[in-house]
Amino acid sequence: MASGNLNETQRQLLSDFRAGKRLALSRVVSIVEDERTGFQEILDELHASLGKAHRIGLTGPPGAGKSTLTAALARAFSARGETIAIVAVDPSSPFTGGALLGDRIRMNDIALDKGIFIRSMASRGSLGGLATTTKEVADVFDAFGFDRILIETVGVGQSELDIAATADTTVVVLVPESGDSIQAMKAGLMEISDLFVVNKADRPGAEKLAREVEMALHLRTGQIRQKVTAHHGVDLERVRKRAAERLGITREEQESDGTAWDIPVLRTIAEQGQGVEELIDAIDQHRAWLTESGELTRRRDARLAERVREVVDRRLRQIVWIENDGRKLLDEAMPALEQGTESPYQVAARIVRAVSG
Amino acid sequence: MASGNLNETQRQLLSDFRAGKRLALSRVVSIVEDERTGFQEILDELHASLGKAHRIGLTGPPGAGKSTLTAALARAFSARGETIAIVAVDPSSPFTGGALLGDRIRMNDIALDKGIFIRSMASRGSLGGLATTTKEVADVFDAFGFDRILIETVGVGQSELDIAATADTTVVVLVPESGDSIQAMKAGLMEISDLFVVNKADRPGAEKLAREVEMALHLRTGQIRQKVTAHHGVDLERVRKRAAERLGITREEQESDGTAWDIPVLRTIAEQGQGVEELIDAIDQHRAWLTESGELTRRRDARLAERVREVVDRRLRQIVWIENDGRKLLDEAMPALEQGTESPYQVAARIVRAVSG
Repeated sequence: MASGNLNETQRQLLSDFRAGKRLALSRVVSIVEDERTGFQEILDELHASLGKAHRIGLTGPPGAGKSTLTAALARAFSARGETIAIVAVDPSSPFTGGALLGDRIRMNDIALDKGIFIRSMASRGSLGGLATTTKEVADVFDAFGFDRILIETVGVGQSELDIAATADTTVVVLVPESGDSIQAMKAGLMEISDLFVVNKADRPGAEKLAREVEMALHLRTGQIRQKVTAHHGVDLERVRKRAAERLGITREEQESDGTAWDIPVLRTIAEQGQGVEELIDAIDQHRAWLTESGELTRRRDARLAERVREVVDRRLRQIVWIENDGRKLLDEAMPALEQGTESPYQVAARIVRAVSG
Repeated sequence: MASGNLNETQRQLLSDFRAGKRLALSRVVSIVEDERTGFQEILDELHASLGKAHRIGLTGPPGAGKSTLTAALARAFSARGETIAIVAVDPSSPFTGGALLGDRIRMNDIALDKGIFIRSMASRGSLGGLATTTKEVADVFDAFGFDRILIETVGVGQSELDIAATADTTVVVLVPESGDSIQAMKAGLMEISDLFVVNKADRPGAEKLAREVEMALHLRTGQIRQKVTAHHGVDLERVRKRAAERLGITREEQESDGTAWDIPVLRTIAEQGQGVEELIDAIDQHRAWLTESGELTRRRDARLAERVREVVDRRLRQIVWIENDGRKLLDEAMPALEQGTESPYQVAARIVRAVSG
């Protein structure tokens, strides 16, 4: 996967991309999102340019006002002279192809800002899955040189948590109406959040929610971010430990010497822009902490290991279903499966044998 | 994968399982959930006994009262002399290991009912992923002979939709507080629902929500359940079409001759048991429709094809990360990845080559 693997068109495209041309950026994003021929080679080429952008994930239950807050943040960053890419993920509507018209219109009014680039992820990815593709699209924006990448995910499911957890700084947005703090804990949001925002803070119940979240955070400090799941055979905890050893620090040490990150609970009214400056300050404090504490390196190492795993998965699917006879074997097996004379396990074993010998 | 592959302990376990022993059921479920040695062989053995249970999925946003409604349904089915298995999925909290104490207690008071078996899925699965494991646990209950399997999923993300969509009958539960119907559509719930329930129907806004959902359903009839995503190289639409051809009917024909399923919007107050009988009637009407229309066969065919794909994925991961040198290769590559001298794509390619030659 060296640049020798790229054809002339792709090399020209990358050259335009590196020259900062917007059209080339759009094209590269589309190639990556649609997993078109050569997309992995292009990502491979861009890999060396990664790591400069600050990736900010915004997540929370539906109706929390994430889009509005994302737009407000983007405007405020832009006013400071920074460039912003927004990746809006709507995985929960794989059938309809993404965001509703209303959201698109709301997003369009910031799309006129030249420093802001917006991309809505519609497809769930045919081979890699939405989470992997979203991270790769964020990589493209990073390589292009954006200062901040805002990744907005709708919903509170596992793949959404996976996407949010890929950010350097993860902001969890709640509203009084979105259920109480117990529900937030249930949804796993506590574990991935670096900052909490209670949006629509002028509504009844906002203060109560904020205090409940603060209480829950206080109870759980020391537990959070400790348990990292062993994921598909890759021991992320071991990867993080390695990085921590290399840096000579541990989370326990951070806690005992008071350098651990203290998750703040902020209040905003995104519609009116209230609290947005304070949120940006907190985001920047978190960013500074990430670098100073070594946590940035740890997170990026875990992310690299995870990416390898995802790319392996995708490549194997490609080999089985596209390059080999997987589809044909499955098609042929359907009558036996329907009649119950063969089980899915027998058919799967046959398909795997055809690949791995 | 014939019974010859099972050892003496496993054969005894299966024999106890088939004799209807609860302890054997618990053990088999644990083996499948934890992907312990021999779990695929056991599932293979049980495959011939599948297809008798009615699988009912309950999903919706956090705080909609799904657990309460699930418990109410289970009690009502039990009172009719049916046996019920409940699979409670809490994928959104992979770190804490599942449900909060309050929910566990609430579930425990129906756990005393001998006709009701409850299983809470805590782990997200090390190789197969939570969605696959949940479906396989449902298979175990089906093979054991339960009349109904209630699958409750928390959240509205993609993997939760995948789980819910695996049921024969999918019930989407909303409450006035959980956001308006526009949010429900955004979350992709429209596409997977066979029945809508507006729970906490005595609260303000319930009637408005129910009417909005009815309106949205009316607008979208004819569009829903048409687009099936091409998923990891398996064309589910083609699989469904095949089944439809075999049956000699299509969705379009159902619509034109008035035999398509008309998605109802029901009102419940689950805490008080109100509307539960009406919900059961609607669930049974849907079940009858599934059989008469041939939709049951279509859905089960698509599910079989999907299962083959999932088992292939899992087996390949096992080969790469457990049986081969995947972990070692990744470990060795970490320094180069950290330094940026190698990209994840290069490392992944090396790991894949080690398996597929």
